[in-house]
Amino acid sequence: MSAIRQATSKSLMLFSGRAFPELAGEIAGHLGVTPTPTASYEFANGELFVRFEESVRGCDAFVVQSHTAPINTWLMEQLIMVDALKRASAKRITVVAPFFPYARQDKKHRGREPISARLVADMFKTAGADRLMTVDLHTAQIQGFFDGPVDHLFALDLLVGHVCERWGDRELTVVSPDSGRVRVSERWSDKLGGVPLAFIHKTRDPMRPNEVVANRVVGEVEGRVCILVDDMIDTGGTIVKAAETLFEAGAAEVIVTATHGVLSGPAVDRLKNSRVSEVIVTNTLPIEPERQFDKLTVLSIAPLLARAIKEVFEDGSVTSLFDGNS
Amino acid sequence: MSAIRQATSKSLMLFSGRAFPELAGEIAGHLGVTPTPTASYEFANGELFVRFEESVRGCDAFVVQSHTAPINTWLMEQLIMVDALKRASAKRITVVAPFFPYARQDKKHRGREPISARLVADMFKTAGADRLMTVDLHTAQIQGFFDGPVDHLFALDLLVGHVCERWGDRELTVVSPDSGRVRVSERWSDKLGGVPLAFIHKTRDPMRPNEVVANRVVGEVEGRVCILVDDMIDTGGTIVKAAETLFEAGAAEVIVTATHGVLSGPAVDRLKNSRVSEVIVTNTLPIEPERQFDKLTVLSIAPLLARAIKEVFEDGSVTSLFDGNS
Amino acid sequence: MSAIRQATSKSLMLFSGRAFPELAGEIAGHLGVTPTPTASYEFANGELFVRFEESVRGCDAFVVQSHTAPINTWLMEQLIMVDALKRASAKRITVVAPFFPYARQDKKHRGREPISARLVADMFKTAGADRLMTVDLHTAQIQGFFDGPVDHLFALDLLVGHVCERWGDRELTVVSPDSGRVRVSERWSDKLGGVPLAFIHKTRDPMRPNEVVANRVVGEVEGRVCILVDDMIDTGGTIVKAAETLFEAGAAEVIVTATHGVLSGPAVDRLKNSRVSEVIVTNTLPIEPERQFDKLTVLSIAPLLARAIKEVFEDGSVTSLFDGNS
Amino acid sequence: MSAIRQATSKSLMLFSGRAFPELAGEIAGHLGVTPTPTASYEFANGELFVRFEESVRGCDAFVVQSHTAPINTWLMEQLIMVDALKRASAKRITVVAPFFPYARQDKKHRGREPISARLVADMFKTAGADRLMTVDLHTAQIQGFFDGPVDHLFALDLLVGHVCERWGDRELTVVSPDSGRVRVSERWSDKLGGVPLAFIHKTRDPMRPNEVVANRVVGEVEGRVCILVDDMIDTGGTIVKAAETLFEAGAAEVIVTATHGVLSGPAVDRLKNSRVSEVIVTNTLPIEPERQFDKLTVLSIAPLLARAIKEVFEDGSVTSLFDGNS
Amino acid sequence: MSAIRQATSKSLMLFSGRAFPELAGEIAGHLGVTPTPTASYEFANGELFVRFEESVRGCDAFVVQSHTAPINTWLMEQLIMVDALKRASAKRITVVAPFFPYARQDKKHRGREPISARLVADMFKTAGADRLMTVDLHTAQIQGFFDGPVDHLFALDLLVGHVCERWGDRELTVVSPDSGRVRVSERWSDKLGGVPLAFIHKTRDPMRPNEVVANRVVGEVEGRVCILVDDMIDTGGTIVKAAETLFEAGAAEVIVTATHGVLSGPAVDRLKNSRVSEVIVTNTLPIEPERQFDKLTVLSIAPLLARAIKEVFEDGSVTSLFDGNS
Amino acid sequence: MSAIRQATSKSLMLFSGRAFPELAGEIAGHLGVTPTPTASYEFANGELFVRFEESVRGCDAFVVQSHTAPINTWLMEQLIMVDALKRASAKRITVVAPFFPYARQDKKHRGREPISARLVADMFKTAGADRLMTVDLHTAQIQGFFDGPVDHLFALDLLVGHVCERWGDRELTVVSPDSGRVRVSERWSDKLGGVPLAFIHKTRDPMRPNEVVANRVVGEVEGRVCILVDDMIDTGGTIVKAAETLFEAGAAEVIVTATHGVLSGPAVDRLKNSRVSEVIVTNTLPIEPERQFDKLTVLSIAPLLARAIKEVFEDGSVTSLFDGNS
Repeated sequence: MSAIRQATSKSLMLFSGRAFPELAGEIAGHLGVTPTPTASYEFANGELFVRFEESVRGCDAFVVQSHTAPINTWLMEQLIMVDALKRASAKRITVVAPFFPYARQDKKHRGREPISARLVADMFKTAGADRLMTVDLHTAQIQGFFDGPVDHLFALDLLVGHVCERWGDRELTVVSPDSGRVRVSERWSDKLGGVPLAFIHKTRDPMRPNEVVANRVVGEVEGRVCILVDDMIDTGGTIVKAAETLFEAGAAEVIVTATHGVLSGPAVDRLKNSRVSEVIVTNTLPIEPERQFDKLTVLSIAPLLARAIKEVFEDGSVTSLFDGNS
Repeated sequence: MSAIRQATSKSLMLFSGRAFPELAGEIAGHLGVTPTPTASYEFANGELFVRFEESVRGCDAFVVQSHTAPINTWLMEQLIMVDALKRASAKRITVVAPFFPYARQDKKHRGREPISARLVADMFKTAGADRLMTVDLHTAQIQGFFDGPVDHLFALDLLVGHVCERWGDRELTVVSPDSGRVRVSERWSDKLGGVPLAFIHKTRDPMRPNEVVANRVVGEVEGRVCILVDDMIDTGGTIVKAAETLFEAGAAEVIVTATHGVLSGPAVDRLKNSRVSEVIVTNTLPIEPERQFDKLTVLSIAPLLARAIKEVFEDGSVTSLFDGNS
Repeated sequence: MSAIRQATSKSLMLFSGRAFPELAGEIAGHLGVTPTPTASYEFANGELFVRFEESVRGCDAFVVQSHTAPINTWLMEQLIMVDALKRASAKRITVVAPFFPYARQDKKHRGREPISARLVADMFKTAGADRLMTVDLHTAQIQGFFDGPVDHLFALDLLVGHVCERWGDRELTVVSPDSGRVRVSERWSDKLGGVPLAFIHKTRDPMRPNEVVANRVVGEVEGRVCILVDDMIDTGGTIVKAAETLFEAGAAEVIVTATHGVLSGPAVDRLKNSRVSEVIVTNTLPIEPERQFDKLTVLSIAPLLARAIKEVFEDGSVTSLFDGNS
Repeated sequence: MSAIRQATSKSLMLFSGRAFPELAGEIAGHLGVTPTPTASYEFANGELFVRFEESVRGCDAFVVQSHTAPINTWLMEQLIMVDALKRASAKRITVVAPFFPYARQDKKHRGREPISARLVADMFKTAGADRLMTVDLHTAQIQGFFDGPVDHLFALDLLVGHVCERWGDRELTVVSPDSGRVRVSERWSDKLGGVPLAFIHKTRDPMRPNEVVANRVVGEVEGRVCILVDDMIDTGGTIVKAAETLFEAGAAEVIVTATHGVLSGPAVDRLKNSRVSEVIVTNTLPIEPERQFDKLTVLSIAPLLARAIKEVFEDGSVTSLFDGNS
Repeated sequence: MSAIRQATSKSLMLFSGRAFPELAGEIAGHLGVTPTPTASYEFANGELFVRFEESVRGCDAFVVQSHTAPINTWLMEQLIMVDALKRASAKRITVVAPFFPYARQDKKHRGREPISARLVADMFKTAGADRLMTVDLHTAQIQGFFDGPVDHLFALDLLVGHVCERWGDRELTVVSPDSGRVRVSERWSDKLGGVPLAFIHKTRDPMRPNEVVANRVVGEVEGRVCILVDDMIDTGGTIVKAAETLFEAGAAEVIVTATHGVLSGPAVDRLKNSRVSEVIVTNTLPIEPERQFDKLTVLSIAPLLARAIKEVFEDGSVTSLFDGNS
Repeated sequence: MSAIRQATSKSLMLFSGRAFPELAGEIAGHLGVTPTPTASYEFANGELFVRFEESVRGCDAFVVQSHTAPINTWLMEQLIMVDALKRASAKRITVVAPFFPYARQDKKHRGREPISARLVADMFKTAGADRLMTVDLHTAQIQGFFDGPVDHLFALDLLVGHVCERWGDRELTVVSPDSGRVRVSERWSDKLGGVPLAFIHKTRDPMRPNEVVANRVVGEVEGRVCILVDDMIDTGGTIVKAAETLFEAGAAEVIVTATHGVLSGPAVDRLKNSRVSEVIVTNTLPIEPERQFDKLTVLSIAPLLARAIKEVFEDGSVTSLFDGNS
């Protein structure tokens, strides 16, 4: 007999980096698995080490990491996990990066700059990733940076659902904090049944192009509840300034919403002390108790990720996770 | 003696596809060279053939093609030229694609779609291109699709210069024809000294997401000369409808401007018959005499391309071709 | 539990480009599937778009395209289909190109030429193709241009079968229309039981190497039924001239046979008006009703392709589709 | 119906090069398969040819070759086998190279040298190998030369087992023949319950760095049975000289052990005529009857390879083949 | 100052494998250089080692090897030389392989075979070769196997020149030894002013396809001096049988000519003892004195290679080395 | 005129990461250049940004980074710099990493581990590095992890020079702190004129393989000045324990020397409080004033790096920087 024949089966395994194990745990709960036991630690000089404590041969691996600070450490940890999976004969490796690191550096704004988001995509590929799963990319074009399938999930329904429930009986206007993301606001407007749109127009002096001279509101906001919509809140500077501009223009209330709550540096204080009524984000990134505050609402992205992972494993359609616009 | 030593020199050679030889000719004129004589033809079944009639060994090759209809033919011709240059030992090959083909398919709008702009970038690389030069990409992220240097030139100064000269003494508003390109309008506004901004908001019914229910103007346009700004005019449908919406909203005059005058199908008729006062494009794509019309102004992009090619060849700074924002 | 385990199955899906959907339909019929519903269209400027209307995750995809004019359009369409399949997580992608495009440019005939057939093979790979299936390559070496498995099918049995049935009781000679394809004629001769061989020798003046001075028949053709054998008939010029030379040399009748009926430009008229008794081709390329004519016989290649696809899907032996010579 | 669905199975196939078919045969016996019938021969000018006589589509292929002299021929044969498997649609290809060729050239010892071990790893990849299985690499870092999973097996237990059985009741010292492999001796010492260690220190004159001035023993060897431990015995020069140095230092007996019995040139005579009591190797490389001698013990590596192949095929854990140190 | 600037020069260095140093020496003589001193040797187990004894940083390297028996050894030596050059920072590496190894395995003749010629081309690329220079490939399509520039030189003029001089006053017929190489004979015929063509037709029984039933001459040879033209003479079996067939068909004399004198196994005896009048080859492969014989003429290919190397180094046109047909 | 010709020159540019700008500054001083002005900073969430403030087109770029803590940040910064250089058309990019990050993870010590050193080498390549320059790799095999030229420099002469000067008149023994690095000690011994060798043998219980049971000295150390030689000192645990073992074995004094002074965590305290007489390292990594202590000697590696960079730029021989052993 010149061949041994055997029926095949496939197995899904979930792996978690150390940046935000609670998110992976929550996803695992929805899937009904346990994250694979993994020894992960840092050497004294900061070099990372990872070892899986169970056989991973032939598995369909999903490697979840949350790219919060120290972001380069967590990125490197995920790359090392992928390398270890590749060398241990995992059959297929999907990087799950709910917040795609370096997404803002998705083009050269001026000459002699990197395109770090492409570099990150290439590094995932080099390490051995076959696929990528992520939520609300800064720009959708980043999908094209990865040479392979990308499952690009949207938190829109989750966020809109919450806004509708809590603010749906008010006169709403959707506002983009700058001119570059008006399209996203338009999607919100459609979801909310065609409410008006506005955006903040920043004027610059052509002699000092990096300096904003003034913020103007374009669109109708007077007396309305303004939903300020962005993909991420980092230091909160832009968004709080936008909120102020809206109040100056007569807004009744301002709600801030974003998929990714980066909330670095002064963000928490700025938002807490602002006149903003509610700040709504998801948990693509961890927000430790000490960074949480009263008007902050954190919605869980884990159910969406779990459903997408299940669909990918079972060759179902991830598209079906979204409505027709996705 | 175990080595022959020799001083080195480098040579710039320009190659032109057959889509729009006049543009390559104009560039060549600015550079003071002649496009390299090339035998190019089509076999009876449509297969293309290319042969260079001079040695190209060791040259710094710039391959100019204009991606007009039949666009796949001209794309394939350029790829074949690059392959022939690679196999003939050109030292470095720069693809010059003033209008990057398939730039609009830069992401999956929905599931199970291609990202054709990435595919095109990869095909250039596969054929042997080392570098890419292009003008006003549909989205700047496409730079990141190519694994190598991209010289991304802007027609902004050229277009703004013309608008200033002809319409500078009027009350201007810069208008984006849709919510996705407001950022570009903002750059125009800055260049024009901070004139007001507006955009056309298209509302959709969430039950029929691909159908636009209404166009609304967001921003101040009444009594003003509106500069409708886009990267390309294809069939002209969007832009003419935007112009109508502006007139309904009280615009005094509407000027249409775009880098790439694709002008396919009904575009010429639509624009000619519209109330638009002037349509301004560049010649990144050819516009045959029969498609030209009275209110159409075509500005030449050749001087900009020639200067960029020269800088690249001489290792100068292409960034210096633009102002500080580039 | 740190893994979810599941039995696996595999699924074959067939995809059809728009060049010749009838062929894909016929193949699908033999396989007992329906080509996957696909939205394919052309934008006004000629850019192509493709979207699959069913989930393709994990499928074993066979993408059928027929490379007829406009050949670059159909090639690009197939590449875009492959890109979309790759990005939608198809498990394995086989390009089915019954007529391999640009096969004649399989080497540099002179300096500074492309090797377009290699470029095409590399573009398929770049787009995401894992495998290639094709019929009667212009030269078998093209198999080596693709970095992966190539199923190279032969129409020989199909064509010989027809010739035997219709002309088998006559005195046959197999004739190669030029010196480069005598080997193929030899295979025909073997299949036909060792009938005599001949070929057309074209003489050239070394001073004008691209100009044929005279056609001479080498081999015995007088009073015999000559089977002129080629891989493709493009404009028909060579083959009709060869037929004339054979008649001058005393041939009783001339039969023309080729796998690929390109039949471009003047081919139909030339063949119709020639003294050739029968022209036999397969439907690797579409021949519209208006290009068909009385003495043309078109044999269907679909059964062969369907059997090969089935064998590939079931890991059977494609070699078994051919006799010992394949 | 737009898909044909089918349950999947997988099949293991074993392929053997011609260098040492007995080893592959022994492995096959343990697995319960027959090596796939293969036509392999050499053309008159030394070019090799390989053809598999059964379908290999979709199989999980293990290609066993033993890299003995003529080593480049056997390496090329294995590469050609891998290429043929890739082109015949094997699903996964594992190169089984019990003795990794060119392992000693794993770094540049001086400038302008190759790193041939990396070149070999890359050639396996280029030919189409997905995985690599090998035994006792000269340095473990060679694992990192291959871009994919490497199953690195150890003969340590096999060799230690034999030594314990035969020499376990004596006073043992483990000796490294040079300063570069003391670590390996330390592993032996641990396995043997902490017996003393020693090594041979070669002194060099800095003016003539490639010339050894003297051999000194560092460590306690007087009156003890010395186990000289190396990864391979090539010409036997180093090892026999080390044995002599040990006897001069008062060793009672010297046992020589190594995983790979290369035994080239004068090795057999040197070892036979030495005062060494036993030479223990495995059959990663063939030792023809005429090269065998009384004090030579050859242990079979086939059971270890068979178990590892089985684990890989069944997605079990190869790590379990070793104790905790592996 | 943030840059050090320096005028550049380039240097040509020639490297020779050990297969046929006389050829490299002859080429070097024509170029006016010395082959770079290189330490090359074989370890006892057949592993090869190479080290260059001069700095090669930044050089334009040409690595000459002659692929004679033991062919896999010389191929591996050349690959190792290329690897060492790459790692030692050579600027550009051209593999000079006058006889391309494994050229006959340029396609799968049947299923489950390798395409070894593509494998060889890929291995050169993997090792670090940028370019390839070779003479009279078995099929010109092999050019397309290498992903980079290939300088494909022809010995046609050299061989025709000799034939003209010695046999030009006789009635010549050019004969192809089999049906697959008639095209090459046609080129000879053109060069010789249009002399007649013939070829040997081998008939096979379709039931036993690998067995030749009979050799028949197709074309006019009676009373003529037949020039039997091939790319290589390996064992001489085919060519000597062809010569016999020609004599049976009435040939007056038979001359045998080929670019590559492989002359393995019984070739010398067969040719010596045949009725062939002259055997003409070039020295792309070494022919040791003991394999030479009276009617053997060996023409030197070195001047052609030297001129091509010089043109490549100086970015001149290699095409100019050939007449219009090349 | 179809080409513009120009004499070429080349320019060296030096780039410095922010980890240890003093080292780059010192190198620059030796070269007579200024590091290229670069804007480098961290966004609030830890993402890094880099922009060069001068044109880098066509330059020969050397990118110096010192991989100290936070090591993943500095690694990522260097990768981003390389990406920016590639996209800005630098001609050649050499990564200068005096301490190669993750060098200790150069193999899988057990199953399911990464080979992070290979991953790092691949990431440099992916980002765009053409070459690599480094000092005293943890194992020389890491050279083979990078697919391109590696300049591997040695600090041996620098360190030995200092030891000779200060301790040369004493009775020295060179000691390896563990069994894996005895080879390095042997090189020291040769340089010091053949002084005796010793090493620390760590015994382990086979039941608890990761636990060291005892440290024993193998070799003669009583009454001698012991030079403990390692490639790096990380937490100092191993080295201080080795020193204690030596004192217990009667060593007169202990000197500690290593190329890389990582000195993380408790290292400084351990060394300060130990009986070690002198600790000698180089500045491949920064040692801030607060980590320096009396018996610490830091030698500068900058002159060696500067000479190597100069040789690489000028195509000189880096090998000449070392004595015959290198």
